[in-house]
Amino acid sequence: MTGAVDVGLLDPATGDAVRLVGDGAYLAAMVDVEVALLAALADAGAAPPSALTVEPAPLLLGLDAAALAAAGRSGGNPVIPLLARIRPALPEDLRDALHFGATSQDVIDSATMLVAARVRAALGTTLQPVIRRLATLADEHRGTPIAGRTLGQQAAPTTFGLRVAVLLDGVLRAARALDALELPAQLGGSVGTLAVLVDALGEDRAQEVRHRFAARLGLADRATVWHVERGPVAELGGRLAVLVGALGRLGLEIAQGARAELGELDVVVPEGEGGSSAMPQKRNPVAAVLLVAGARRAPGLAATLLGAQLALDERPAGDWHAEWQPLRELLRLAIEGAVLAHEAVDALAVDADRMRANLELTQGALHAERAQWALVPVIGRSRAAALVREALAAPEFLPALLPSIEDPALADRVRAVTTTGGPIGLADRMIDAVLADARTRS
Amino acid sequence: MTGAVDVGLLDPATGDAVRLVGDGAYLAAMVDVEVALLAALADAGAAPPSALTVEPAPLLLGLDAAALAAAGRSGGNPVIPLLARIRPALPEDLRDALHFGATSQDVIDSATMLVAARVRAALGTTLQPVIRRLATLADEHRGTPIAGRTLGQQAAPTTFGLRVAVLLDGVLRAARALDALELPAQLGGSVGTLAVLVDALGEDRAQEVRHRFAARLGLADRATVWHVERGPVAELGGRLAVLVGALGRLGLEIAQGARAELGELDVVVPEGEGGSSAMPQKRNPVAAVLLVAGARRAPGLAATLLGAQLALDERPAGDWHAEWQPLRELLRLAIEGAVLAHEAVDALAVDADRMRANLELTQGALHAERAQWALVPVIGRSRAAALVREALAAPEFLPALLPSIEDPALADRVRAVTTTGGPIGLADRMIDAVLADARTRS
Amino acid sequence: MTGAVDVGLLDPATGDAVRLVGDGAYLAAMVDVEVALLAALADAGAAPPSALTVEPAPLLLGLDAAALAAAGRSGGNPVIPLLARIRPALPEDLRDALHFGATSQDVIDSATMLVAARVRAALGTTLQPVIRRLATLADEHRGTPIAGRTLGQQAAPTTFGLRVAVLLDGVLRAARALDALELPAQLGGSVGTLAVLVDALGEDRAQEVRHRFAARLGLADRATVWHVERGPVAELGGRLAVLVGALGRLGLEIAQGARAELGELDVVVPEGEGGSSAMPQKRNPVAAVLLVAGARRAPGLAATLLGAQLALDERPAGDWHAEWQPLRELLRLAIEGAVLAHEAVDALAVDADRMRANLELTQGALHAERAQWALVPVIGRSRAAALVREALAAPEFLPALLPSIEDPALADRVRAVTTTGGPIGLADRMIDAVLADARTRS
Amino acid sequence: MTGAVDVGLLDPATGDAVRLVGDGAYLAAMVDVEVALLAALADAGAAPPSALTVEPAPLLLGLDAAALAAAGRSGGNPVIPLLARIRPALPEDLRDALHFGATSQDVIDSATMLVAARVRAALGTTLQPVIRRLATLADEHRGTPIAGRTLGQQAAPTTFGLRVAVLLDGVLRAARALDALELPAQLGGSVGTLAVLVDALGEDRAQEVRHRFAARLGLADRATVWHVERGPVAELGGRLAVLVGALGRLGLEIAQGARAELGELDVVVPEGEGGSSAMPQKRNPVAAVLLVAGARRAPGLAATLLGAQLALDERPAGDWHAEWQPLRELLRLAIEGAVLAHEAVDALAVDADRMRANLELTQGALHAERAQWALVPVIGRSRAAALVREALAAPEFLPALLPSIEDPALADRVRAVTTTGGPIGLADRMIDAVLADARTRS
Repeated sequence: MTGAVDVGLLDPATGDAVRLVGDGAYLAAMVDVEVALLAALADAGAAPPSALTVEPAPLLLGLDAAALAAAGRSGGNPVIPLLARIRPALPEDLRDALHFGATSQDVIDSATMLVAARVRAALGTTLQPVIRRLATLADEHRGTPIAGRTLGQQAAPTTFGLRVAVLLDGVLRAARALDALELPAQLGGSVGTLAVLVDALGEDRAQEVRHRFAARLGLADRATVWHVERGPVAELGGRLAVLVGALGRLGLEIAQGARAELGELDVVVPEGEGGSSAMPQKRNPVAAVLLVAGARRAPGLAATLLGAQLALDERPAGDWHAEWQPLRELLRLAIEGAVLAHEAVDALAVDADRMRANLELTQGALHAERAQWALVPVIGRSRAAALVREALAAPEFLPALLPSIEDPALADRVRAVTTTGGPIGLADRMIDAVLADARTRS
Repeated sequence: MTGAVDVGLLDPATGDAVRLVGDGAYLAAMVDVEVALLAALADAGAAPPSALTVEPAPLLLGLDAAALAAAGRSGGNPVIPLLARIRPALPEDLRDALHFGATSQDVIDSATMLVAARVRAALGTTLQPVIRRLATLADEHRGTPIAGRTLGQQAAPTTFGLRVAVLLDGVLRAARALDALELPAQLGGSVGTLAVLVDALGEDRAQEVRHRFAARLGLADRATVWHVERGPVAELGGRLAVLVGALGRLGLEIAQGARAELGELDVVVPEGEGGSSAMPQKRNPVAAVLLVAGARRAPGLAATLLGAQLALDERPAGDWHAEWQPLRELLRLAIEGAVLAHEAVDALAVDADRMRANLELTQGALHAERAQWALVPVIGRSRAAALVREALAAPEFLPALLPSIEDPALADRVRAVTTTGGPIGLADRMIDAVLADARTRS
Repeated sequence: MTGAVDVGLLDPATGDAVRLVGDGAYLAAMVDVEVALLAALADAGAAPPSALTVEPAPLLLGLDAAALAAAGRSGGNPVIPLLARIRPALPEDLRDALHFGATSQDVIDSATMLVAARVRAALGTTLQPVIRRLATLADEHRGTPIAGRTLGQQAAPTTFGLRVAVLLDGVLRAARALDALELPAQLGGSVGTLAVLVDALGEDRAQEVRHRFAARLGLADRATVWHVERGPVAELGGRLAVLVGALGRLGLEIAQGARAELGELDVVVPEGEGGSSAMPQKRNPVAAVLLVAGARRAPGLAATLLGAQLALDERPAGDWHAEWQPLRELLRLAIEGAVLAHEAVDALAVDADRMRANLELTQGALHAERAQWALVPVIGRSRAAALVREALAAPEFLPALLPSIEDPALADRVRAVTTTGGPIGLADRMIDAVLADARTRS
Repeated sequence: MTGAVDVGLLDPATGDAVRLVGDGAYLAAMVDVEVALLAALADAGAAPPSALTVEPAPLLLGLDAAALAAAGRSGGNPVIPLLARIRPALPEDLRDALHFGATSQDVIDSATMLVAARVRAALGTTLQPVIRRLATLADEHRGTPIAGRTLGQQAAPTTFGLRVAVLLDGVLRAARALDALELPAQLGGSVGTLAVLVDALGEDRAQEVRHRFAARLGLADRATVWHVERGPVAELGGRLAVLVGALGRLGLEIAQGARAELGELDVVVPEGEGGSSAMPQKRNPVAAVLLVAGARRAPGLAATLLGAQLALDERPAGDWHAEWQPLRELLRLAIEGAVLAHEAVDALAVDADRMRANLELTQGALHAERAQWALVPVIGRSRAAALVREALAAPEFLPALLPSIEDPALADRVRAVTTTGGPIGLADRMIDAVLADARTRS
């Protein structure tokens, strides 16, 4: 019972997960929470001033997460055994103040939000090079034509720069939505009234303790207890899943573009990585693949968090416990996703020639839309459609279409909008908008 | 193939759903979108001024959603047959301008957001009486003691007012998060570049068309196309599920409180409603039950929307289509949830006597925590715990505890914090905070 | 409130859905259930013999599903108003026997299983041509080499026949698992004891009624009531989702293979179908795309059914109601999936030349594994790996590798296993196994 | 990177999880798979006979799961580094045969199924005392009347024995469905053709290797590769979720029945367990609560597995990797659920007096249904309904009803079916059926 369930064997994207969301990280956050409460009590004069100088690190010494997990089993959470272990390590005059007014859920919820806040801060850093690299790619490839595809079929030309900008837009918006989310501390006492603290200190000072507690943890101070109002967790889950999804889409595009038959992207795999146990020639786009894997897992985890809102009473009987692993896994997927995205974009090579070659695979047919609409104002909708339809039936579209246009100016106009490599719609403006957005995060 | 799949038989909470999220509502929104685009083109001088006066209503006349659904099957969406049907109803000089520069996804995405915006507006109204009633209950029952329960067990006293305030807090926050979400229009053309519009009008005027288009629909004008950047839908799904969850929790509390064995709440069912096909005495809390049912369904639907972010190319091959029904169902659950919540709180009767009687079921044991912490500062933690433990072993807690306290002032203090009916912690301040919040929505 | 929520506009795969799983189908099944109960009562002598000749069809006349849905709202289900409407249409001596001993849930659960049984029977038929066509393709393309791909990268040669056989295997196994599932009738009375029937008829005859009732419906007779033991629904949901997933994978493979850049498959779209509202040249693989869409939706629906197992008491307060729409949607996705799969495989064209051309894209590198393992027994693992590694660094693999092998017999052996078009492993035997399996369903 | 992510801190139900589904268990299973393949090769004469005596245990010595996880990151799975570490520990003449013909996915899929088979076997044992205890309770409480409840409201009397039998029925059926599931070995080689093995051994012997491989692992030998046909995993996930749900429902009933206000059940918590960090009097039904928590998590995990069916090519690019953690978590929830269920039923105390007292809370109203139906055959449906309605309006139902029945024999009959404590419907027969079923598993 003292071994580990999960050291990353089944989630190859271990990376920073252990440090940020491992059981050790949660345990450290719980100790941080108890220490912050001690200090907040001292701030309000409800604990000796020595409480202000308690350091979490020594309390963590010798704490064994597996042993605490085992000891916490009978109570359903590890806080009771944790208190039993850290109390003796405190100066004697602080022992009675430890956990004063709090309940296990206050500690676990606040620790969870602290872990989430730390992951969010780490994401801010880890996503930086991803954003920068995507911004650079979008900018550099404004003029790189590529076949725009819809429902899997070549549809009309676009630019690789715009495609990247849209990917980047998704990452930026998801990161911003996550940043905007309030991560609250929890301090309500047994049934959320903070009665014990108020009994001891009165309403004003008790409220001050909660306020200082939240401030010391860098979390928001909610006016209302949220023991059973699980919006904070449900929303956090949703926003994490949106970010993991945005990163997963990046992986999906890379894995697809790197297929030999498309060849528009390549993943430069360092010697000895991305290999196969069976096929010597393989160079797998592992980071991209794992991004997809993460994004496939996130919705089910988020759904569990959304469902956990259906909690009765003053503390849920199971619904709360059901949140813990899924939220940790979502935080893990988010931070690992950022690490993997960094790897994936770093290794990315763009083959602009192949993009152009693919675009020409359909003999100009994907210019049909712009050609047709260029014709409409002059020769009308049905005549334009007929000309285009006929030309599409020919082996090559443009060589068939252009001669069929009688008006030379109109033919020029059609030629202009069907020449691969010219500017395309608002693509550049959209890229500019995303780049401006990206700069606000640098 | 022209019948209906769903007229509400399996979702008894039909209510406003047909009007707001039925296929007819979607169809009307699609027509609104095409009309807005015509007008926006006219705004930019790209369509005759008569486009400014086109009314959607006449175009809807005679449109048969079932026939359009059938006709749209081969193309995967109903926009192509819709265009074929409304074009002849337009003045001849506008026919070529219809749908100019747009693609099916522009119409469906914008119409979806329009439907969502209309549901959101309706929610604003429908939730008003729910919020008012919950606010009144929270205020009126500040002084109504009730057993606070954790993990299903009686834990410590709280007030019914606070319990209601926390429920209301969840609804308010969820509604606010939904209100804060940007609902964007979509106008990108076939592959998202708006190339056809730019070919015809140049970048400035094309951008102006998109801007006017969004403004006319009352939707946000996104600088970047989101054909495959499905954050808007994923986030909308998440926030709808949070709201549906908050309303479901209300139903769960009501259904539980109305159990005969608890009897703290009652649902005043009108004669002839809430009946059973088998049991003549039954008066089922149907609205509460259906709120729970809705909240159990929302997470799976939201998960599908979160998963649909994994979209390739310039338009997804299936992932986009997978969004339509789940988002509609979530919108339906939200608006029906508001209607059901209104019914549920309207019918709610509170039995304060039963709340107090239940609180006394455990012979004062649920005062143990506050008693113990009142003792700690004076007689120390371990001595306080011992006294409390002994008294808990007696048939009645307080009559056993109080005489065991030697210091009369301390006994008075313990008596004060264990007398049912006194003020409880920060409960009133929390209620005040939620009421203040509620007033900002009135 | 009397309109329709859903006539298929947002689920373009309407097909047989209305007929098989529409509200009308459910309503008809509910009437069938009441009629079967009347007859079963007569079988046991508990209703007049005239009950044996009641026909459901006349009772359905004039029933309006939307009106019943509206009338059923206050009771949470449509059975009470349904009874009120069909009772007067019965001969007078049967009216008291209508619904005798039953409760609403008996009717809805049995009707749901009846709908499921009908969908399953329809699937048996609709899947036939899909299975036949896939079997034919697998057989015909045993000798068609194609690049086997793993993690998106070309890996080693396989045959298109085997690829199809594996797809077919998934469909066959999923269909068989669904066929093997017991679909039980439900008849427990108000709280599952069948007390009212036993009071009237005694245990033996009451049990006989239940037995006859199930037999008349063609459903299984469970010895135990399952009002709150929702395994039957949860398992049904899981197996439907597995089938929808197997069909979705077929769609995914088709949509991918039909991409212009791969070109290994083509979808022969009838004139005027698969078109686009914007791009005249588009021929979208709509059926394949909708198969994917369905499969993306199924897991969230199945998850709701799995979650609905957590039901209290003798009838769930919301969890049961939460099952209705998701199960209907899963049944709909299954039957529509079969229809779409038929369309998709019917329209499928195979480009064996392109498969071979793609296989040669990597200059023989995907033969590296078999080459290496052919070398190992003779020259050892590390020497073989070195030769292969060197050859992979050359522009073309085989021309570089073969001369580097000194032993001519060994070179011949390597040549034999790296020649495109030769037999590949157990591919044929696997195909044979699947074809044999397919024949058992014809 | 060498620490642990999860030692059970956030899943307090650690129990047997580490041993059965921890990364160590997976690693051991992978070694077992490689060893079984070596032996199967020897069986077919394709490896030296010494391969038949290789023991897995020594190969595991010194393997560090965390280090392997880290080393496996770049390749996306731990098999490559695992091979590098175990190869030198093999006799020299076996090294080239290690992993011969196999690919990483063969090892991971087979190891996963081996882990699943071991969990299933453990479940068989761990569920035994749960089944026995529930069977005993059902049998002993055949005559214990309890209020049957529907939609949370008292409905009609049933017996506690039947309630327990239905819970047991759910567990038995779920366990049987899991037992009936085929757990296949996987051996397909790089792209599923087994080409390398066939190249070396011919078709017959290669097939024999696969057959022996499966047999040695105690897994099924599938005729077809299932690298991308993920039905086995999707179905396993579904069936595990059904079992976890059945166990969760047990927990839900216990947690609800143990609420002070119902008091029908009690959880005898050992001294020092089930405590609270804040409330000295609390004795939480922790095992029941954790059962609920597990069941709330299972559907989201199963949904991910169902979604992972949508896999392209010969090996999925991410969808496969997405299966690993969710399947492990489901296996963990299943085995822990069995352990928790054992604890929960062991600690369960039944308060038959309280059940009866609760049943009388509604002054006989819950006898209304049976009374009414006893009247119907004699005095007709509408007259019976009127009598019952009137009596329900009185303070006590039966004292009001009985005198209003003119026919004394009829009054006796009504009295007989409304006397608490008499036999109830088919309850005993249903209990018998479940007990008979339970005995087949003992």
